[in-house]
Amino acid sequence: MARKINFNAGPAALPLPALERAAAEFLDFAGSGMSVMEHSHRGKEYEAVHDEATALVKELLNVPENYEVLFLQGGATALFAQIAMNFLEKDTTAQYVITGAWGEKALGEAKAVAAMFGANIAVQNVGTGEGKEKSYTRVPAPSEVKVDPAAAYLHVTSNETIHGVEFGVDPSRAFPETGGVPLVADMSSDFLWRPLDVSKFGILYAGAQKNIGPSGVVVVVISKALIEKGRKDIPKIWQFRIHAENKSLYNTPPTFGVYMIRNVLSWLKDQGGLAGMERINRKKADRLYGVIDGSNGFYRSPVEKESRSVMNVVFRLPSEALEEQFIAEAKKAGMVGLKGHRSVGGIRVSTYNAVSYDWVDTLSKFMEEFQKGK
Amino acid sequence: MARKINFNAGPAALPLPALERAAAEFLDFAGSGMSVMEHSHRGKEYEAVHDEATALVKELLNVPENYEVLFLQGGATALFAQIAMNFLEKDTTAQYVITGAWGEKALGEAKAVAAMFGANIAVQNVGTGEGKEKSYTRVPAPSEVKVDPAAAYLHVTSNETIHGVEFGVDPSRAFPETGGVPLVADMSSDFLWRPLDVSKFGILYAGAQKNIGPSGVVVVVISKALIEKGRKDIPKIWQFRIHAENKSLYNTPPTFGVYMIRNVLSWLKDQGGLAGMERINRKKADRLYGVIDGSNGFYRSPVEKESRSVMNVVFRLPSEALEEQFIAEAKKAGMVGLKGHRSVGGIRVSTYNAVSYDWVDTLSKFMEEFQKGK
Repeated sequence: MARKINFNAGPAALPLPALERAAAEFLDFAGSGMSVMEHSHRGKEYEAVHDEATALVKELLNVPENYEVLFLQGGATALFAQIAMNFLEKDTTAQYVITGAWGEKALGEAKAVAAMFGANIAVQNVGTGEGKEKSYTRVPAPSEVKVDPAAAYLHVTSNETIHGVEFGVDPSRAFPETGGVPLVADMSSDFLWRPLDVSKFGILYAGAQKNIGPSGVVVVVISKALIEKGRKDIPKIWQFRIHAENKSLYNTPPTFGVYMIRNVLSWLKDQGGLAGMERINRKKADRLYGVIDGSNGFYRSPVEKESRSVMNVVFRLPSEALEEQFIAEAKKAGMVGLKGHRSVGGIRVSTYNAVSYDWVDTLSKFMEEFQKGK
Repeated sequence: MARKINFNAGPAALPLPALERAAAEFLDFAGSGMSVMEHSHRGKEYEAVHDEATALVKELLNVPENYEVLFLQGGATALFAQIAMNFLEKDTTAQYVITGAWGEKALGEAKAVAAMFGANIAVQNVGTGEGKEKSYTRVPAPSEVKVDPAAAYLHVTSNETIHGVEFGVDPSRAFPETGGVPLVADMSSDFLWRPLDVSKFGILYAGAQKNIGPSGVVVVVISKALIEKGRKDIPKIWQFRIHAENKSLYNTPPTFGVYMIRNVLSWLKDQGGLAGMERINRKKADRLYGVIDGSNGFYRSPVEKESRSVMNVVFRLPSEALEEQFIAEAKKAGMVGLKGHRSVGGIRVSTYNAVSYDWVDTLSKFMEEFQKGK
């Protein structure tokens, strides 16, 4: 059947050329007489893929020499615990700035680790309300974030997929200035959406399944200084040092996932790299927010303008019944993945790199027509 | 090009029908207009795959009702640490029976966890020699294993891929009888090679990339009683309880890997299930060991007969030069993956489920011819 217009929040749409490349050589990778997933992770065929994927991350993101790029497993959720395990010890403190549900999850895992090690967690939460009424509609301005200069690190979630709030889209909502404190960012849902100054961060990490590949791989960009600081008395599988020393081949990596990332990043480079991607992503977001803002309140974004995400555009309609109708009619028109997260409801349009402007334009026109019909 | 005869140790050969099934629907899964890896892990299309993979493990292995089947990430290496994290606490002891390099790795991670929690590890090592001279050529008989009835669990590696020793092939080398102590087995390289009485184990776990799928998924079969016993104060991502409660969907699973496992297990069922697979696997091993034992010492197995693995057949030739020549000539004949692990040298033939008797027979004939030429 025809290809669906896929606004899934993750796992999400992948660029068709990256998928077609994989399909074409699925049974016989590079004339080797076997699938890429049947190759040894220590053989030259896979090694070339692995090295190319690493090099593409470095090239696209302009990663400085004093950083390592790692491909690990367990998704961002595993990293929530792993980061705390590496850098917390007795009487140290880590800072968490919470702008949504993923930050809360990261915090929960860090608290468990802090309790094990006798460390502390300092929390700055920008949400309002409590419990089920908790609401996240913004990211803080840099001046709002109080950095403890003695903190082991300061953790942020660069883009909250459920709430649609994102750091760094508007200049007034840049990432916090942390001075000498390593800034650690979960970038699962906005990794590689645009150029970034990596040197401002101690660690970037991202589950691949939103912007750069299938689920099952988490990409970590980490400074060598932090790698050195990591604890040596925790299990090796959780030490960034071990993975860096072994080029992410300490244990068997998710080879097919890394291969797909290679294909996606190769496509991304063809789009003009991250500068080209940013132009497209901003154009997509402008189109959608334009419809919302021009709808006389029919479509309502709950997010403060300066904090609006370019990756996950969330909005409400006048009633839940209309939202259900919107989703059903969009589906009939070949568009899927529009239902908001079950915890907040409404509509969520995930517009990751692989989602084309044409797809977004088709949806935007649908939104305009849908409103006219009401 | 023609399909290679693939004896890789892992990632390893997969059944061609399972690969062809994936290739045919790679761009359009089940008429859904997208790849299976673009589907949400919470959508009905992926859910059906996930549930079928789970059901196939249960059916093939005849998993009792009081066990859960989980699909996790990080490979067996992550489980080395995770198991210890769940079940060790202050002043408890875990027992490790070491029959090779993978057992040593599991032990190393458990020791790190034990140190964190003030727990103890008791080790029974059946190897001989020390350091670089360390040699593993056997698994213990049940009577040799001294079980501490107070141990939190007793850990074994059912098959050591590097050394080619395996529990349970010969009746005299059955798994240890542990009474009330949970028996925990790393079955990465021999999971589902034959029927098994799961009720004798507390946990079975297996990285998928040898016998049942691509790398990036680890299958865990765990008793509900052990799940209940697991610590609740460790990060959620490492608690088996959390994954069981969430049907392995607590965080995004490696969806394409689980899909490939579904395809492989569906093929395995078509081979007559595990009883059928055992017949084929034993026939393959008999063929290879027959050539070795009939070679008047030209091919030498370092492994005691009762401990010989049916999954990884390791042997030496009269010289390293001949071994190199053997590997090179086999490669010319379309056979790859025969080089022994770098830590022990020699030849290793990995004969996992997807390696056909015909492939093994072709290699066996090659071995006979190679010897004649010397």
